[in-house]
Amino acid sequence: MTGFTLHSQLENDCHVMGHLHGCLLLLHRNSALPWYILVPKSNVNQLHLLPPATRSGLNRAMDQMAEFVLSQPGCEHTNVAAIGNRVPQLHLHVVGRWQGDPCWPGVIWGNLPEAPARSAGEVGRLLGLLSELRGFNG
Amino acid sequence: MTGFTLHSQLENDCHVMGHLHGCLLLLHRNSALPWYILVPKSNVNQLHLLPPATRSGLNRAMDQMAEFVLSQPGCEHTNVAAIGNRVPQLHLHVVGRWQGDPCWPGVIWGNLPEAPARSAGEVGRLLGLLSELRGFNG
Repeated sequence: MTGFTLHSQLENDCHVMGHLHGCLLLLHRNSALPWYILVPKSNVNQLHLLPPATRSGLNRAMDQMAEFVLSQPGCEHTNVAAIGNRVPQLHLHVVGRWQGDPCWPGVIWGNLPEAPARSAGEVGRLLGLLSELRGFNG
Repeated sequence: MTGFTLHSQLENDCHVMGHLHGCLLLLHRNSALPWYILVPKSNVNQLHLLPPATRSGLNRAMDQMAEFVLSQPGCEHTNVAAIGNRVPQLHLHVVGRWQGDPCWPGVIWGNLPEAPARSAGEVGRLLGLLSELRGFNG
């Protein structure tokens, strides 16, 4: 495909951490929860319309990110979702959750409290950890 | 795997429509939106922990249900999510959405308004349509 551009809302809300199996890997700026977003490089807007190779890459990246999130201290569970009601560009959320987290047991979408932006040091630390994932390119 | 039992909350909230590629296929009783739920017959509680064959079946069923939902009059979009904060049994939501629907553009989880239960006639009509899906067993 050609002409892939990250949606401006995702660009505003997130740090672009790198690339993972054909997806852009984003980290939401809100520090309340570990909230990662995978954006497959495709112009379709529904999961089932992705070309098979792109879908396969997204599935692999999704699983790696779920494992990554669960490897972080305190995370007990993941929420995985493709919603896209406000941002039409196809993107998949992978969010680390735990009992008593700032939204528990509700979902984060529409419910996440204001929280400080992540510090540059914290983003750098996470980037260092992510760079160890198989298939990650910064 | 052995000993699979549908979680009582899902049983209470949904109609069991049948089986699709190793998953139970449920329809939420709330008639506000076309809200289907796939429950893979497994005791793991995260997508990435599913055995490959079960995962593959779930992916196939998820795509079929997205296509099915989009084939219904008025549906423009799907929301697909594995959340499981309140019900720990792994289950995947496939929800039909459209601009101006009762929750638009919010998510349904925690936001769905009260709505009448579906009539037996409507459930029967949908069951008839679902029975045409490849791999569906009532």
